[in-house]
Amino acid sequence: MLPIISIVGASGSGKTTFLEKLIPELAARGYRVGAVKHDAHGFEMDREGKDTWRLKRAGAEVIAISSQDQFASIRRTEREMSLEEIAGRFFWTEDILITEGFKKAHYPKIEVFRSALEPKPICGPADNLIALVSDDAVDMQVPGFSFADWRGVADFIENRYLRDRKKRKILIQLDGRQLPMKDFVEDFVLGGIEGMLSSLRGWDKPRTVSIHIRLGDDD
Amino acid sequence: MLPIISIVGASGSGKTTFLEKLIPELAARGYRVGAVKHDAHGFEMDREGKDTWRLKRAGAEVIAISSQDQFASIRRTEREMSLEEIAGRFFWTEDILITEGFKKAHYPKIEVFRSALEPKPICGPADNLIALVSDDAVDMQVPGFSFADWRGVADFIENRYLRDRKKRKILIQLDGRQLPMKDFVEDFVLGGIEGMLSSLRGWDKPRTVSIHIRLGDDD
Repeated sequence: MLPIISIVGASGSGKTTFLEKLIPELAARGYRVGAVKHDAHGFEMDREGKDTWRLKRAGAEVIAISSQDQFASIRRTEREMSLEEIAGRFFWTEDILITEGFKKAHYPKIEVFRSALEPKPICGPADNLIALVSDDAVDMQVPGFSFADWRGVADFIENRYLRDRKKRKILIQLDGRQLPMKDFVEDFVLGGIEGMLSSLRGWDKPRTVSIHIRLGDDD
Repeated sequence: MLPIISIVGASGSGKTTFLEKLIPELAARGYRVGAVKHDAHGFEMDREGKDTWRLKRAGAEVIAISSQDQFASIRRTEREMSLEEIAGRFFWTEDILITEGFKKAHYPKIEVFRSALEPKPICGPADNLIALVSDDAVDMQVPGFSFADWRGVADFIENRYLRDRKKRKILIQLDGRQLPMKDFVEDFVLGGIEGMLSSLRGWDKPRTVSIHIRLGDDD
């Protein structure tokens, strides 16, 4: 699974503005960055009256729009998907997933904090805080960075989560949850699947293989 | 692979309006409908200035927004994805995928036609046309339906593509293209993978299994 880092902070603290500096910095260093934003209030991605909006309102479970250089989709969900499920289903090919929000998830967090807005950071000791971005003097016993030091934050993330990371060659999800495997089990399963498929007609040294299996009754 | 039906027609012929009738009709019959629209001109799914738009402009490859009842994502693509790849990656759990546009793909097509707009239908004999929706008298040697007869079109699609369809239990994609397998090969591969994984700790009778494998060097 790719590393997931959550940028959290009070509303108005400047999370998106900071991400607008951090994401291009990581991208310029050659990493493929995915970003996901948590929205507690529901959202309208497409505009009222547009074709996609009309198809969704008509009852399509998933609607998508495809063009030469981008692909967008909106799907109904019965419950909010977990970050783990989101990462595995939609960000498998990226190097890092940065989230805006998702404070309740257990992934490493960087808080963006302004004392003019809140008396103290929203993250406590139990929140897996790894760094603080603030122009105020706060001791959270984690590395601190100023708002202008997005390069320092990128260094910190790169050293801790990206450099020398072994890229996983296989990810298995059962009902959206990652199946943890030790290295030798992973090699064994990978070898077994590759061996079985490579004997089939149609196999031509692919770079990626995706397998979807339905076991239960669907309805 | 799920059945894919393309609704095609000249611009302004009423494709979206017809889909606004057809999709709820199929959904009311218990089918999970996915819809994808082709956009030749590029599109802006998110609004300028909104957070997601800002993250995408900052250089994220994929941005997503998640809430309790829906999940939306926009990804950059190097080329337009094929319908086959789109269906396998994003619509695997649906019963049918209806496309608006995609005339050049080889999937079965229903043309929406108005003689006030065009002298003749845009589909010719080589276009895999399966039905025509029009209030004009046109003989295309395929079943014809009036604009008001979306129930008839739903019956036609249901009888031909949905009823008694054997639901595939396993889909394998190599670099986004489906690996065709005969039934007994499919059963063999499915049994092999299920047998291997079910002996691992963490296996607890899942309903769905997704496996992603990277074989080539990624960069």
